[in-house]
Amino acid sequence: MTSPSPLAPAAFPDLPEIGGVARRVARAGYKTWDRCDLTLVTFGPDTTVAGVLTNSRCPSPEVEWCRRALVLGKATALVVNAGNSNAFTGDRGRAAVEGLAARVARHLHCQPSDVFLASTGVIGVPLPLDKAEAGLDAAFTAAPCGWQTAAETIMTTDTFAKAAVTRAVIGDPSTGSGQTVGLVGIIKGSGMIMPDMATMLGFIFTDAAIDPAWLQKALADANHKSFSCITVDSDTSTSDTVLAFATGAAGNAPIADDDDPGADAFRAALTDLCRQLAHLVVRDGEGATKFVTIEVAGAESDASAHRVAMSIANSPLVKTAIAGEDANWGRVVMAVGKAGEPAERDRLAIRFGTTQVARDGLAVDGYDEAPVSAHLKGSDIDIGVDLGLGEGCATVWTCDLTHGYISINAHYRS
Amino acid sequence: MTSPSPLAPAAFPDLPEIGGVARRVARAGYKTWDRCDLTLVTFGPDTTVAGVLTNSRCPSPEVEWCRRALVLGKATALVVNAGNSNAFTGDRGRAAVEGLAARVARHLHCQPSDVFLASTGVIGVPLPLDKAEAGLDAAFTAAPCGWQTAAETIMTTDTFAKAAVTRAVIGDPSTGSGQTVGLVGIIKGSGMIMPDMATMLGFIFTDAAIDPAWLQKALADANHKSFSCITVDSDTSTSDTVLAFATGAAGNAPIADDDDPGADAFRAALTDLCRQLAHLVVRDGEGATKFVTIEVAGAESDASAHRVAMSIANSPLVKTAIAGEDANWGRVVMAVGKAGEPAERDRLAIRFGTTQVARDGLAVDGYDEAPVSAHLKGSDIDIGVDLGLGEGCATVWTCDLTHGYISINAHYRS
Repeated sequence: MTSPSPLAPAAFPDLPEIGGVARRVARAGYKTWDRCDLTLVTFGPDTTVAGVLTNSRCPSPEVEWCRRALVLGKATALVVNAGNSNAFTGDRGRAAVEGLAARVARHLHCQPSDVFLASTGVIGVPLPLDKAEAGLDAAFTAAPCGWQTAAETIMTTDTFAKAAVTRAVIGDPSTGSGQTVGLVGIIKGSGMIMPDMATMLGFIFTDAAIDPAWLQKALADANHKSFSCITVDSDTSTSDTVLAFATGAAGNAPIADDDDPGADAFRAALTDLCRQLAHLVVRDGEGATKFVTIEVAGAESDASAHRVAMSIANSPLVKTAIAGEDANWGRVVMAVGKAGEPAERDRLAIRFGTTQVARDGLAVDGYDEAPVSAHLKGSDIDIGVDLGLGEGCATVWTCDLTHGYISINAHYRS
Repeated sequence: MTSPSPLAPAAFPDLPEIGGVARRVARAGYKTWDRCDLTLVTFGPDTTVAGVLTNSRCPSPEVEWCRRALVLGKATALVVNAGNSNAFTGDRGRAAVEGLAARVARHLHCQPSDVFLASTGVIGVPLPLDKAEAGLDAAFTAAPCGWQTAAETIMTTDTFAKAAVTRAVIGDPSTGSGQTVGLVGIIKGSGMIMPDMATMLGFIFTDAAIDPAWLQKALADANHKSFSCITVDSDTSTSDTVLAFATGAAGNAPIADDDDPGADAFRAALTDLCRQLAHLVVRDGEGATKFVTIEVAGAESDASAHRVAMSIANSPLVKTAIAGEDANWGRVVMAVGKAGEPAERDRLAIRFGTTQVARDGLAVDGYDEAPVSAHLKGSDIDIGVDLGLGEGCATVWTCDLTHGYISINAHYRS
């Protein structure tokens, strides 16, 4: 285990129990390591589920399984394997997924389609079904564990366990029937991170009662403002999966429509939780020493602003300049210029932290690099770009590119 | 001066003189360094010119100047500045370009629009016109120099001087009037390299007589198969410029049409020269230790194959695996999957060197990693991908991503 990222939070958060959710872990031994690597989460009888999955054209069989099962919107269990992604493994990989789902269904007397699966690790090695089955059997007989153990067990190259919590009051305030529900999420991921409408593996649990179709809509919206706005290295996983489970244990009137009492509050809480989780992934970006926020305004559309922001966030030259604490704002100009989006050099303005460095296509009069250099010495870096064209805006989050990234990824498999 | 890239050729090539081309260099002192940094090339009276320039939305004023001047197709001089890109410098940068062109025109009794300019270096600092003018005056009184001195003087972060040579027989073979013309190119560039229809600074010189409109067409075609097929770091310069000058000193009947005698031979020679030059840039990729060729076949179109190949070539995870000599072909699967192009996982085949590693969506039966590992220990790496969908194919060239890239770019300006 490597030492935690310098950007890791000081401690794992205090998390409440979520009614209808039980966690267990076991050692399947997917790699030769001395740790648990299989996580089993079981749910109460009325649990609904929504999910967003990678748009990769080479998805893992787990992703394909979840995509089909999500149509039914009902969940009884979740199994997460760490150390083997099972991606690009043909029929053997598919058979492993089907075998595992069937075994869980037999244990729990449910349909296989009520079982959700996710795996990450090396691509191209079929998940060993014998190890998975033995691990699963061990998990079923294990005592339930806490959130932190589960968050640790889904990790691969992560340097710290990641979780977040929020709450929403979802009753009808006009009748005084306000009711507080909890939302807890755990997530893993630090490399191969530029989620394409999804992220690495993230799991969200709430005791609210939510109609699965509406939960799907709310999750897709939240994802659009969180996981889809982060990048570590511009590489998109074959296994990206975010699933949200709503157990209904809170006993609220189910939310099924935007106009239902509590819909807005729940949606805001879900977005907040997703953003917390997405930021944790960036803070564990491979080799990261700086957490970088990039805000683009003045674009022709929000989508255009997002693409410009991602062009900056994915530029190796911008990321290495930040690693070197070098106020090399010309590289931001370069990254705007290459984005392929509407931009006019002579309207472009750039800000580092609170210091305006360029405006109208050149450095500001009397530009003083000192406050920019001071800002870059911190661990949280803000870059603002105004294209001066329209009302479109977007915010994305990334990290710097360091020797640590090279060291980790030139030798990941060994 | 850092030591040359391990991928550098053993020696600078022997280059012939090209009739109608004279080179001179001088010290403008754009940076505090002990070297020449201004290159002046003057041309005979009938010289035509063609060029391809960056598609960046934030181009340097030199790029804009060349774009306008290229319309006239006539060249008397070329000035190349090293150490200052003059990009993103507003009116002051534009004034420097205009002042420099006017001064050259006065010296040579030509139109300013016959003068071509190119500059690379730090973005955002206006080119100091006083230094440029003094350097220019020194160059005009200097003795002509050889190709190698010129190739060295246009360098910035390059670790070796880059040039290539080829020849074409362009007379009418049916009448026995075959005539040999020479083509010499010099180029600089090692970082901020993913040319968008152009590259860093490349200059091509031939003694052939060529109509400028046809030269432009031939150069655009050659560029499409060379500079547009390389990437070091996915970052596109604000200053990318390739100019081809044809002096006509060979005295051939000017080539002005695809059906003219010698048109095919010249076009083939130009493409060969551009490819040689493009490869030299990749071989000087910042921190590079491996020269990587990526061939994609079986795509729905050539354009689609090119985008898939670039997705692989730009993937930090693929590039770091190659740096680590790690046969981690799953990362190629990932990069195909994220490319956003038509692909079907279960038709995908992957080859490293001559070894097939995966076919039909999974590792080949009895896959033996040993020959792949052996191939990866070499300095020239070949990766082949067959998408199994159609006839589209493309080849691109890149290098690996190493600690060297981080070291160079976290501290470039200092």
